[in-house]
Amino acid sequence: MYDLYVVTDEKLSRGLTHAEIARRAVAGGADVIQLRDKDKSSRELYEIACEMREICRGRALFFVNDRLDIALAAGADGVHLGQDDLPVDAARRLAPQNFLIGISVGNADEAAVAKSAGADYVAVSPVFSTPSKTNAGIGHGISAIQEIRAAVNCPVIGIGGINADNAAELIEAGLDGIAVISAVVSAPDVTAAAQNLSAIIRDAKELRA
Amino acid sequence: MYDLYVVTDEKLSRGLTHAEIARRAVAGGADVIQLRDKDKSSRELYEIACEMREICRGRALFFVNDRLDIALAAGADGVHLGQDDLPVDAARRLAPQNFLIGISVGNADEAAVAKSAGADYVAVSPVFSTPSKTNAGIGHGISAIQEIRAAVNCPVIGIGGINADNAAELIEAGLDGIAVISAVVSAPDVTAAAQNLSAIIRDAKELRA
Repeated sequence: MYDLYVVTDEKLSRGLTHAEIARRAVAGGADVIQLRDKDKSSRELYEIACEMREICRGRALFFVNDRLDIALAAGADGVHLGQDDLPVDAARRLAPQNFLIGISVGNADEAAVAKSAGADYVAVSPVFSTPSKTNAGIGHGISAIQEIRAAVNCPVIGIGGINADNAAELIEAGLDGIAVISAVVSAPDVTAAAQNLSAIIRDAKELRA
Repeated sequence: MYDLYVVTDEKLSRGLTHAEIARRAVAGGADVIQLRDKDKSSRELYEIACEMREICRGRALFFVNDRLDIALAAGADGVHLGQDDLPVDAARRLAPQNFLIGISVGNADEAAVAKSAGADYVAVSPVFSTPSKTNAGIGHGISAIQEIRAAVNCPVIGIGGINADNAAELIEAGLDGIAVISAVVSAPDVTAAAQNLSAIIRDAKELRA
């Protein structure tokens, strides 16, 4: 469900818009697309989210970062929250029952709190230090993945410094999915990069099974 | 209902927090308090909004600027939208029936569109050019107030460059309420400034009646 999770970022995309990144990543087999943009006005975000909603419909889950209002207004499948965003329980109270809520966590305690507050998945963030999010902090590494994996019974994905070279070992370490920004968004061929990562994740899951 | 409408701004407040501005303005008779902050994280905004919700309860209406999710999560009375924020109709679909939606407009057309989309009030913005919002543009003046007043049958308030010297003439021109930032927020005595403006508005309304 969350195997390959692509977070869009126009600043890292070689000129592609959020919608175009989504279109190409979905064509390459991305399972989830998340719109993330901290600079645009609410109106711009809403319009982009509505377009991405249609691109993803029936092909990938569509999430919006941080802005629950934009996510709900655009009919997204879910919202992805950080530790500095709305608390999960507050978001859960506002959202319809089948609306998905994911949250970034840094350790097993944060994961357990988020899960009991109603999170549908947790994202270990960052797994490795990463240039895509300069404020994301030092990577938590594979040991954190294993601790978080043991602490919660919901899907655990990872984000931060993940690419085609290290994705397989993270799946082996227990991740249910891999979230990437630059490994797909900055690739010369977004669709091919998504296809390649998708295959790596699928193969690693088969080996693990 | 919207007679004196105070928009909080920590950058213009001589060091007072949003909550402290609200507390003092409410003590001075403000009818509406709006939390406006474009810099804080969603979590910070949510926590401030929850505190302001309690300060205003039973004493003043409490609005949040732009962020419908924060407004709904904190149990605010309403959201104030700009032309660059979520469209009114999208916000209306997400909000409970008695939740208030206000919107900034610059002319009668925008006011009519907002009203038919479900706005509860419109705010002529800016009435005069103002240093509080450097991107707010050139003031629309008293003629715009009269055109907008004639175009819609909901409350019309004004914001931008309004103070104790010009509030009375704007009420005479047809405004139902006066929204201010610096005229209250930057005053040496926030409570006294609110009391003074409140009395001016009340007197001007009595003269008009």
